[in-house]
Amino acid sequence: MSVRALTVGLGDRSYPIHIGRGLAGQQALFAPHLESGRAVVITNETVAKLHGDVVERTLAAAGTRFSRILIPDGEEHKRWETLDGVFGEMLRAQADRRTVVVALGGGVVGDLAGFAAATYQRGVPFIQVPTTLLAQVDSSVGGKTGINHSLGKNMVGAFHQPLAVIADTSTLDTLPDRELVAGLAEVIKYGAIRDLEFFAWIEENLDRLRDRDPAALAHAIARSCEIKAEIVALDEREAGPRALLNLGHTFGHAIETLEGYGTWLHGEAVATGMVLAARLSARLGRLAHADAIRLETLIRRAGLPVEPPTLAVDAWLAAMGRDKKNEAGRITLILLDRLGAAAIEKNAPPRELEALLSGR
Amino acid sequence: MSVRALTVGLGDRSYPIHIGRGLAGQQALFAPHLESGRAVVITNETVAKLHGDVVERTLAAAGTRFSRILIPDGEEHKRWETLDGVFGEMLRAQADRRTVVVALGGGVVGDLAGFAAATYQRGVPFIQVPTTLLAQVDSSVGGKTGINHSLGKNMVGAFHQPLAVIADTSTLDTLPDRELVAGLAEVIKYGAIRDLEFFAWIEENLDRLRDRDPAALAHAIARSCEIKAEIVALDEREAGPRALLNLGHTFGHAIETLEGYGTWLHGEAVATGMVLAARLSARLGRLAHADAIRLETLIRRAGLPVEPPTLAVDAWLAAMGRDKKNEAGRITLILLDRLGAAAIEKNAPPRELEALLSGR
Repeated sequence: MSVRALTVGLGDRSYPIHIGRGLAGQQALFAPHLESGRAVVITNETVAKLHGDVVERTLAAAGTRFSRILIPDGEEHKRWETLDGVFGEMLRAQADRRTVVVALGGGVVGDLAGFAAATYQRGVPFIQVPTTLLAQVDSSVGGKTGINHSLGKNMVGAFHQPLAVIADTSTLDTLPDRELVAGLAEVIKYGAIRDLEFFAWIEENLDRLRDRDPAALAHAIARSCEIKAEIVALDEREAGPRALLNLGHTFGHAIETLEGYGTWLHGEAVATGMVLAARLSARLGRLAHADAIRLETLIRRAGLPVEPPTLAVDAWLAAMGRDKKNEAGRITLILLDRLGAAAIEKNAPPRELEALLSGR
Repeated sequence: MSVRALTVGLGDRSYPIHIGRGLAGQQALFAPHLESGRAVVITNETVAKLHGDVVERTLAAAGTRFSRILIPDGEEHKRWETLDGVFGEMLRAQADRRTVVVALGGGVVGDLAGFAAATYQRGVPFIQVPTTLLAQVDSSVGGKTGINHSLGKNMVGAFHQPLAVIADTSTLDTLPDRELVAGLAEVIKYGAIRDLEFFAWIEENLDRLRDRDPAALAHAIARSCEIKAEIVALDEREAGPRALLNLGHTFGHAIETLEGYGTWLHGEAVATGMVLAARLSARLGRLAHADAIRLETLIRRAGLPVEPPTLAVDAWLAAMGRDKKNEAGRITLILLDRLGAAAIEKNAPPRELEALLSGR
């Protein structure tokens, strides 16, 4: 399997994304970023057992002194108490401003370790080593880091770009099915917002993806990262088009917050959120009904949920009212004009939204 | 009393510092930064009683909708639990990415509210309205924000520059004596590290400063801010010369951490830290003994402590080993070559440091 390399173009903060099998063992990819010779590996117990040794051998071979910091597994631990513990371990290990944080794991590890790197001693460098499909196609790229607040998902955080993203696709071999499928939600998202051809490719290759065909996965990851890198380079801090990457996320974050972090996987909530966004787009006459159904069909075929949990409309609206895209108390949504073309809507008609959420 | 205005030159993140009596009531200074029409005022109960109404009337006159968020008073509350409460109140108030945080208070409020602004929804704008001498001469300028960790002072934070610093010197009229004196420590620091003439001016005008002579205070604040702005413009993220502003702080932070946050005021700990730094500089033959005594004399005359608490050498070294300036486990110190000229020392002889700390 060949190695693919992309670049996120952000001037002097540009960085590479490497994608391929066995990359966690490739010293040459890590060494350029470890000149200080000091690192801390932040990961969880499950990932550490599977991939910790490989990464740490690579660090050692590159002449790096490191310590390992374990955090508990699961979205419900992406919160301050966990972060405070990480800071304590970094202080005890005498991590300094040139110590490199290596974030080894899925989205929870990457977001939390990235935010630790953004704020420990007012900022230290970090490397993303994503080990889930969701992290490889989405959360490890683009510098969004953060934690949840009890009142809202990802409400506390920072933009802090990594030195590099090293996506070893062989880590997907051991990924639980449910997590693989959750990652497919974000892959489908890229097609839906930006690339109809890619969307059609996913439709055709869905079985290969679910069967973990390495070539299919490598293509899906690379194309997803290309689209993400392109949008992030246009709009690093989400002043405009970057918000398109949030298709399904306003609904999805509300589900995650209201159902309790970790009950729905992020990808599952986003999948259902995309279905709701498509239904609303169709109701508003922006998206052809056939296209809304086509998206819903692909999401269902992927093994992802298409129906939201039963929640009171007030609870939906309150949770959606605390979204980072909102302005002056109005809910901003990402809607679809067609498959492959999303748009930011700052004035969605409240009556249509309420009708959708109440199942009318 | 005239208004003085300085600029912190940081390209497109440059901002003004306004210094003068009655500025909290001047709508024209606030209005340019409140285009979104939404703000949250973060302050504590003591400051709110004295100055909350003035500032909030100014915001209202500028057409701004705001809510007030109170945090408990004292360095021991500059920590995560307090910040988490602030995030909760901001979420309940539906603060969004264009809502402006107004930090009204001393160093604790400014650091914590600034860090809240740096990380709420990955960053919102903020204005510093410092109400203590220490905050007006030092902590409100330069974009350092953060909170303490139980293992080390200011260990978690971000560089996040304000839109403006509005220092209303009439707020000093009601400042407790102990806090005024603590602020003088940082004023003396600027003379010691960078400007012998200013140092001599402080020696001559110390009684006027302690008596709160408005003209003397205005000059001390303006000259302190000038020196700080100059150094911050050279080195925003403390890769080099900005560390000079840390004279006395490595010792001082250790005292604050080991004695319990809030037991010593920050300015008191820094004052004693400067005496220790001067003594070490003299021991090492870098600074004339007469100059070390001259600094110590001024600090004592200001009403500030010159002797550290009794602490075990191991505890000193462990706490100083967790300083942000350190690299690869070695303690970095700011030393004096003469009054008006400080230098960064990455290799202070451990034996001399231990002898100093053990009082030998």
